[in-house]
Amino acid sequence: MNSAQNSGTASATTPAATTADERFERGLALLREIGGQERPAVLDSTADIAPDLGRMTVSFGYGELLANDRLTLKQRQVATVAALAAMGTAAAQLRFHIDGALNVGVTPAEVVEVLIHTAGYAGFPAALNGIAVAREAFRDRPGLAFEPTETGERDQRYERGLAKLAEVDGHAGDAVVASLQDIAPDLGRYIIEFAFGDVYSRPGLDLKSRELATVAMCTALGTAAPQLRVHIHGLLNVGGTREEVVEVITQMAGYAGFPAALNGIAAAREVFAERAEA
Amino acid sequence: MNSAQNSGTASATTPAATTADERFERGLALLREIGGQERPAVLDSTADIAPDLGRMTVSFGYGELLANDRLTLKQRQVATVAALAAMGTAAAQLRFHIDGALNVGVTPAEVVEVLIHTAGYAGFPAALNGIAVAREAFRDRPGLAFEPTETGERDQRYERGLAKLAEVDGHAGDAVVASLQDIAPDLGRYIIEFAFGDVYSRPGLDLKSRELATVAMCTALGTAAPQLRVHIHGLLNVGGTREEVVEVITQMAGYAGFPAALNGIAAAREVFAERAEA
Amino acid sequence: MNSAQNSGTASATTPAATTADERFERGLALLREIGGQERPAVLDSTADIAPDLGRMTVSFGYGELLANDRLTLKQRQVATVAALAAMGTAAAQLRFHIDGALNVGVTPAEVVEVLIHTAGYAGFPAALNGIAVAREAFRDRPGLAFEPTETGERDQRYERGLAKLAEVDGHAGDAVVASLQDIAPDLGRYIIEFAFGDVYSRPGLDLKSRELATVAMCTALGTAAPQLRVHIHGLLNVGGTREEVVEVITQMAGYAGFPAALNGIAAAREVFAERAEA
Repeated sequence: MNSAQNSGTASATTPAATTADERFERGLALLREIGGQERPAVLDSTADIAPDLGRMTVSFGYGELLANDRLTLKQRQVATVAALAAMGTAAAQLRFHIDGALNVGVTPAEVVEVLIHTAGYAGFPAALNGIAVAREAFRDRPGLAFEPTETGERDQRYERGLAKLAEVDGHAGDAVVASLQDIAPDLGRYIIEFAFGDVYSRPGLDLKSRELATVAMCTALGTAAPQLRVHIHGLLNVGGTREEVVEVITQMAGYAGFPAALNGIAAAREVFAERAEA
Repeated sequence: MNSAQNSGTASATTPAATTADERFERGLALLREIGGQERPAVLDSTADIAPDLGRMTVSFGYGELLANDRLTLKQRQVATVAALAAMGTAAAQLRFHIDGALNVGVTPAEVVEVLIHTAGYAGFPAALNGIAVAREAFRDRPGLAFEPTETGERDQRYERGLAKLAEVDGHAGDAVVASLQDIAPDLGRYIIEFAFGDVYSRPGLDLKSRELATVAMCTALGTAAPQLRVHIHGLLNVGGTREEVVEVITQMAGYAGFPAALNGIAAAREVFAERAEA
Repeated sequence: MNSAQNSGTASATTPAATTADERFERGLALLREIGGQERPAVLDSTADIAPDLGRMTVSFGYGELLANDRLTLKQRQVATVAALAAMGTAAAQLRFHIDGALNVGVTPAEVVEVLIHTAGYAGFPAALNGIAVAREAFRDRPGLAFEPTETGERDQRYERGLAKLAEVDGHAGDAVVASLQDIAPDLGRYIIEFAFGDVYSRPGLDLKSRELATVAMCTALGTAAPQLRVHIHGLLNVGGTREEVVEVITQMAGYAGFPAALNGIAAAREVFAERAEA
């Protein structure tokens, strides 16, 4: 970290330009869009023993953390659904946010694609358990317009995977696979054929959304720093901006904690510096 | 790692000075205090298929790991409740240890404050799910004296946050926020205003308990090494001793495994060396 | 990473030599052995909203990832049961794989030993919650031949632990304990007496299986890189081959995601290089 970055003090940060009431109202408004209820459930579920936690969820978790336009609500819900499914520790919140995704206009098919996308980053159990939660969410919406996508396995997954790997990860992904040649060549082949040939190439969820989900997952998990760096590059490669990278990582502070977000920003800093030098 | 530290061999460690029966009896006694039952439930729940695991939980998990006075039982329960809530993978044990906290004299209000404190380190889902477990624990204690604290949001959270950040983290926290200026200034503001202005400044749980909980969480999670170092400094800054730092990290071996504890001790070693040089 | 490893490109990896149908059939066959059902449950549980995920679980998760003889199915199930129990986020899959272990010939006593073994790496909650799942699995098999092992605590756990530590970890484990002398001597003693004297020395699960489970857990958790390196050495020390090391780590891609497996392979690369130099 160079001196230009370090010479400021904490007080160089400026206070929020909003009042407590403004943040609470903004949080309520966001939660109405996402949660679909006039009064957010979290206020009632915490009222009896921890009303301040409910208020902070509304005021900070929504009224500050989500209250800017750097990402759309659809993008935010894609990121949050992916992260919570990957974490595997928050089934109740995953259900709320799958509903939230549907409420803000993410289609059911897109929700399913996000959950399938988690398999490569957090394993099949996380993806399957996420699908089980989505099933309940869909079931509770009579008249939901949803036909499951069944692509089946398509030919030429190797060629398709190589092309998709280059499109998303460019040099960074290529280097990962090459580095596996001498020690674990099958794992390299699985990345090309399964991760990129099968999953990344699926229709129904655009590449930028996939990379937003991936950056969110790798940030929230906290165990995937090298992959987070590769996919911050990836998000930038497929049309994401630095602002969007920073915003989706920052959003993870609410769902996975500040350490996860801080360590994600550290990864972003390295990637931005690499790209500036290149 | 320098040669002075490495020159010993494993056998320089000395055996426990207790017998198996002594450790088992000591574990039973501790579990009576914490669990409130004459015979610990873990012996019955494991008797049919894994009686040795039940015995080891009593003898080692309590009769060795917790059987010293470097931390009080209240401090141990604060650390364990925070860690288990942050991990999000052990709801049954979280319930047991919330009850255990109440049994050893942690007040219900303090339990709630510990759980609110987890939000910044493990995310709002972990905190909300922990509060849900606490609700059940409180409900099952008729006559429990508990009125929820509702501070609401207080003015001047920025100034209050800066002051609290300096009080807890001194230079280390200041550097974290400053490093965010050029890349993620909002995240820096959230640390000052939310993490320190809103949460750390709350009444109802003293600063040393907050830092014991934080060190426990960052150790147990295993994904927050930079933050663990900052908060080992923090615990020492607010009156904790090196012995207490080592003890709370070691305690996490029982709840999150030896790797988590070992990696926590490695962080402590770095922090102690930094402070010795300064 | 040296140039010899990096000079290849992603396309140096070769495509799978199988067709989609062959992989699906191979996956079905493996799932029949492991799951004990003619038609794998995962196809039915995903048919309504994510049939492609069910197909990919069969074709890739089993028909590719598990479809070689580098590890036996018993070894694979030992690794998977340990990893899922350690992760603590996949109770449904842990149940399936405990049943799977029994179906492929892992004895109930061995299943219990695997779960006890997780306590040192992921904490007592993970082990106890795993035992609770195993209890249900055993209960649903009337006539299962199982008598719980009760060794009780045996004398001379310190001497036994030192010997077992040397047998498994050689220099690497010795260095870990020695490094703790000056900062956390109790933790060093717990490793010798509890981890090795009590758990590793238990009858009922051979040392190589214990190290396969340990490598699997440390890979899946993603928070234990130093310990993963120690135990890759350990697996090689007790008769495992490099091929088996790479295979068990690769298998974790299916249960914990590709980042976990990739970071595990990076650890294996370091260990192989150390051993080549020595």
